[in-house]
Amino acid sequence: MSADPPRIVVLRLGHRPARDRRVTTHVCLTARAFGAERAIVSTKDGGLERTVDKVVAKFGGGFAVETGVSWRKVVNDWRGAVVHLTMYGETLEDALPRIPRDEVLVIVGAQKVPGEVFNLADFNVAVGNQPHSEVAALAVFLDRFLEGDGLRRPFAGNVVIVPSRRGKTVRTRA
Amino acid sequence: MSADPPRIVVLRLGHRPARDRRVTTHVCLTARAFGAERAIVSTKDGGLERTVDKVVAKFGGGFAVETGVSWRKVVNDWRGAVVHLTMYGETLEDALPRIPRDEVLVIVGAQKVPGEVFNLADFNVAVGNQPHSEVAALAVFLDRFLEGDGLRRPFAGNVVIVPSRRGKTVRTRA
Repeated sequence: MSADPPRIVVLRLGHRPARDRRVTTHVCLTARAFGAERAIVSTKDGGLERTVDKVVAKFGGGFAVETGVSWRKVVNDWRGAVVHLTMYGETLEDALPRIPRDEVLVIVGAQKVPGEVFNLADFNVAVGNQPHSEVAALAVFLDRFLEGDGLRRPFAGNVVIVPSRRGKTVRTRA
Repeated sequence: MSADPPRIVVLRLGHRPARDRRVTTHVCLTARAFGAERAIVSTKDGGLERTVDKVVAKFGGGFAVETGVSWRKVVNDWRGAVVHLTMYGETLEDALPRIPRDEVLVIVGAQKVPGEVFNLADFNVAVGNQPHSEVAALAVFLDRFLEGDGLRRPFAGNVVIVPSRRGKTVRTRA
């Protein structure tokens, strides 16, 4: 890949704190682990922010989450490509070569996404045209888009997990 | 890839119906969409079974989910490779070339996994050594292991989503 990695922000729509907090947490942590720099959640959720911030404080990196932000404003202000992940979209393999590799806003919905989003997006992309999980879709999209580089980035955390064939090896910064 | 695709079964440990149903549903649907033939959940959960069975009835394929099965028995009876996905494991890139491509049992935990599992597994594999999501880990593992073939498989369902750049195109069998 080129020297400058693409700038990736994930926008989560339709989050309902009581019902969706766990899955939205998975969305945010997946965004972080696979190479996004930020997640934006359309509904305010302080608990979600605290959970994600704790992981960042412990495991490192500059990832940030913001909640309670108007998704329309985020999409309108975005200058790069807008990619909406939906099982109704064109296949990932068809879309990937056409998505510009500079700035990408990746939209993932919770339940039903407003029809408007399909028109605002530059690309409606299906990671498989089967129902599964927005977490899975986001992970595989980022993994393919960054050609594995997202997972290869080092995180300078206070806690570092050292890859190991058996058991757990954890290094803690003094 | 070779003519015979690997046989893949996903084993979900530590499922608590009240807390984990939604994420475990994502695990099962991800297993189905990315190329596994079956999911086994260690705790009995009729609601989970019904949800997954409904998706299979509508969208097709031979995927099955079983709940309330002893995970020790599943692991002991398994004749192929056992791959445990954990952020403590060796990196996916190191492990992948060594995993035999015939029969694979993929273990994903909910909360803390019994230490025993690390020893019973032939491979403890980290899809990134960062905390994120078992759904993301499973999706990317299967996508890489099957080199994208999992997503390319056709499903002969009563409902077929036709890939589309805008909007939703759904074909229903008469």
